[in-house]
Amino acid sequence: MAHITLPAELPGIRGPMAFRPETAKPLNELVDILLHGPHTLSQGERELIAAYVSAQNDCRYCQTIHGAVAARHLNGDEALVLNVQRDPEHAAVSDKLKALLVIAGKTAEGGRHVTAAEVARARERGATDLEIHDTVLIAAVFCLCNRYVDGLATWTPDDPDFFRRRAAIVAERGYAASILQDVPE
Amino acid sequence: MAHITLPAELPGIRGPMAFRPETAKPLNELVDILLHGPHTLSQGERELIAAYVSAQNDCRYCQTIHGAVAARHLNGDEALVLNVQRDPEHAAVSDKLKALLVIAGKTAEGGRHVTAAEVARARERGATDLEIHDTVLIAAVFCLCNRYVDGLATWTPDDPDFFRRRAAIVAERGYAASILQDVPE
Repeated sequence: MAHITLPAELPGIRGPMAFRPETAKPLNELVDILLHGPHTLSQGERELIAAYVSAQNDCRYCQTIHGAVAARHLNGDEALVLNVQRDPEHAAVSDKLKALLVIAGKTAEGGRHVTAAEVARARERGATDLEIHDTVLIAAVFCLCNRYVDGLATWTPDDPDFFRRRAAIVAERGYAASILQDVPE
Repeated sequence: MAHITLPAELPGIRGPMAFRPETAKPLNELVDILLHGPHTLSQGERELIAAYVSAQNDCRYCQTIHGAVAARHLNGDEALVLNVQRDPEHAAVSDKLKALLVIAGKTAEGGRHVTAAEVARARERGATDLEIHDTVLIAAVFCLCNRYVDGLATWTPDDPDFFRRRAAIVAERGYAASILQDVPE
């Protein structure tokens, strides 16, 4: 049971977001820019960073929904998502993304863990300042979301199809639109 | 030196915020609602939560600036801020705030660390669902900010007066307005 009274039908972050729409609005706008908007990193790559950090932080809701959104952007390749979450260095992603995932994982451990050598490696593999910046910020944002979801003890569906259905909506409409009342489940 | 090229004159979070104004906007709006807007918790209490979590996360920039803003709202009592950061249970704050600071500290460790007993204790001491929600979200937001600041290796001024001057501006104008170009240092 959640630590505060939340709308019972909404799982994960959607309960507290409905409870406090004032803070949900800028948070969804921030996530939309980072994960859904135009970018030199693909939507699949950015969702993989979110799903990887959420797995590192052991947040079941966030790692499952962002894993499902990532798979949606990656031709449905759910195995690739799980490989990235478990062992990114040996997953079938680009060397640049592997270097960015290291930076994301270190950011999640604590900002000071990120080293100049790790950033240099990402840059050698083609990462721009903006991509490095956004990788750190995506990781930091999911350190927020993971703690928001679990710090209030929200509930997480067990059915993988729930997440696949939700991912289809989010992948198409983005985050700001997906909390609107008229969005079907 | 920062991991990416940032405006050299801007310390802490202000460098990456100037680098990426698109993401700075919703992030500042979120912090404004949580720390500066109307609330049943005072601005001083909410800034203490931010300053405490930032100290727990060992982020020098955030713990100093939010400590200075908290002191500004607490009749300049910088000693009280340091006491809360070091040992909240024995600081001269209300029993309700002590219980909320426990929830904030546990959220920073990881969302699952927050227990139902700790939430019940806060409620017994008068905390509302909104106050518990916002305590978790403030703590989570500062887990973001602390990692954003240190994950990019931004610089932090040594002069305490820098933070006192900046705190005076932020305490009066809030966060969304304080990054505008026309705000004097």
